[in-house]
Amino acid sequence: MTTDASLDVVGIGNALVDVISHETDEFIAAHGLVKSAMTLIETDRAEELYAAMGVAIETSGGSVANTAAGVASFGGRTAYLGRVYDDQLGAVFAHDMKAQGVHFVNPPVHDGPPTGRSLIVVTPDAHRTMNTYLGASAFFCPDDVDAEIIRSAQVTILEGYLFDRPESQDAYWTASKYASDAGRRVALTLSDLFCVERHRDGFLPLVRERVDILFANEAEACALWGCDEVGAAVERARAEVAVACITLSEKGSVVVSGAETHEVPAHPVDVVDTTGAGDLYAAGFLYGYTAGLPLPRCGELGSLAAAEVISHIGARPEISLASLLDG
Amino acid sequence: MTTDASLDVVGIGNALVDVISHETDEFIAAHGLVKSAMTLIETDRAEELYAAMGVAIETSGGSVANTAAGVASFGGRTAYLGRVYDDQLGAVFAHDMKAQGVHFVNPPVHDGPPTGRSLIVVTPDAHRTMNTYLGASAFFCPDDVDAEIIRSAQVTILEGYLFDRPESQDAYWTASKYASDAGRRVALTLSDLFCVERHRDGFLPLVRERVDILFANEAEACALWGCDEVGAAVERARAEVAVACITLSEKGSVVVSGAETHEVPAHPVDVVDTTGAGDLYAAGFLYGYTAGLPLPRCGELGSLAAAEVISHIGARPEISLASLLDG
Repeated sequence: MTTDASLDVVGIGNALVDVISHETDEFIAAHGLVKSAMTLIETDRAEELYAAMGVAIETSGGSVANTAAGVASFGGRTAYLGRVYDDQLGAVFAHDMKAQGVHFVNPPVHDGPPTGRSLIVVTPDAHRTMNTYLGASAFFCPDDVDAEIIRSAQVTILEGYLFDRPESQDAYWTASKYASDAGRRVALTLSDLFCVERHRDGFLPLVRERVDILFANEAEACALWGCDEVGAAVERARAEVAVACITLSEKGSVVVSGAETHEVPAHPVDVVDTTGAGDLYAAGFLYGYTAGLPLPRCGELGSLAAAEVISHIGARPEISLASLLDG
Repeated sequence: MTTDASLDVVGIGNALVDVISHETDEFIAAHGLVKSAMTLIETDRAEELYAAMGVAIETSGGSVANTAAGVASFGGRTAYLGRVYDDQLGAVFAHDMKAQGVHFVNPPVHDGPPTGRSLIVVTPDAHRTMNTYLGASAFFCPDDVDAEIIRSAQVTILEGYLFDRPESQDAYWTASKYASDAGRRVALTLSDLFCVERHRDGFLPLVRERVDILFANEAEACALWGCDEVGAAVERARAEVAVACITLSEKGSVVVSGAETHEVPAHPVDVVDTTGAGDLYAAGFLYGYTAGLPLPRCGELGSLAAAEVISHIGARPEISLASLLDG
């Protein structure tokens, strides 16, 4: 790891505002939602679903944006690249990044669709079901990638979710080349099972050629490599990337790197809303990783950050994660 | 009380989205905020203060809008009159009213300032300090008053906050005349000490000539009538209005009507955020009142609803208030 970096982590992903309501499983069924997954929706469907949803709260979201906010909450130096429109939700997103201490690089755009949002339904079992209208965020393209920012960060983290348009895929290849050429690390989170199934052919070469640190849950890892069971996927991950973190929900995670294998327990907590669990796991891990901590400790920080975020509504930490480090 | 009403409660007030962050008392001091009060701010100040605030959540607010939502949450039939602009925050406000079961009467406007918002800082002692950019909401005028809606409701409730422009004052006189002429009741909440001090000369004739049910805390009631202590203010209220509810924070409330005096205890709760306490007290009271319940029970329902809303962040109930009625 080069140590002259002025940033610890820079994230690239969908810049979204979360719109969160509590609904029953009957609501999930009645509206044909895919429970616990992220489904992309267009304008009409977004309006229809929003109209059906109950009283909501709005908070800034976006998977890797949450990760960047989490790293900043631990005290890491972070930046974020993503697209918002020049509207009220875009201003909310930009405000919250800045307020969290994340340098939000891209100014709002003035053409195209409005700022994206994720309509998130939380059921009584604390699972979140996401229906995302990407809006402006989907139009992230290579021109939006700030080479100097990428080069200045120890790790650039990419999210699978931002892989739906060719320009965004190009942006990932562009950004990861800037990072690799500068001797930096590239991380990728696979985001969602259906996302992996949509983009397996695009993810595989990116993982093989550019990704140093991979985050995935069991189902995503198995889907990426066509494995029937997680053990096989872990071994594929070990062979393909320098570090892989396979998250196992309440069973914690397994971190593999070369010959090393570390089983990391989850941090026990009363689960209120699982939104952001994976994002904050990545935040804790990368904070530790860029601080030069041993891999088992990085995993523990991932568990700690994930536990905080699932203990309340919303996908960003409510307390300073740095304050948890003292304990 | 006439019993042919198709609505129980209609509210008129500022249609606002709350932007809530947690800050220290040092933040209050550093930015010259008036703690626990509502201060009106203009665009520049709103931008400056928002930039200084930490990570925020957005939820629909507005004092009497919260009251209408609370009455609906108990199962009451409600409508709301207020002004939003045709923008994202306006859509959030309209959605949340509809989702709560409140008929939001006025369509969004297409000229003038954007939808208003209240920048709310919650300090560790759970007090809320509000800095409100009224935006579109301040331009509520007599043309926005739907006479049929007013006539169809048992009670029309007005908030002191919407008294800052002459057109809005005119709208209150217009609405209260529709209500009185139809044999309906008019309620007013005095909203805030500084609001009373700004508008005492406007409030006094409205209270005397039109208001049947008055909601005020100790300081507001004393300020309205220039009383040195709350006992004197209670007696003035008894003389001036048919029913007065004087709220006393953690000491509960006193409800007076003619010769009747009822001391109503507060409902014990761990206080997280006092935003909406008075609004929801009015909701519980008016739900009981329009259901024909005895005044002490109306006060108890006020305490119950206030306790729910101060037990969490945000000024709208998080659970069905009707579900609390079974207990």
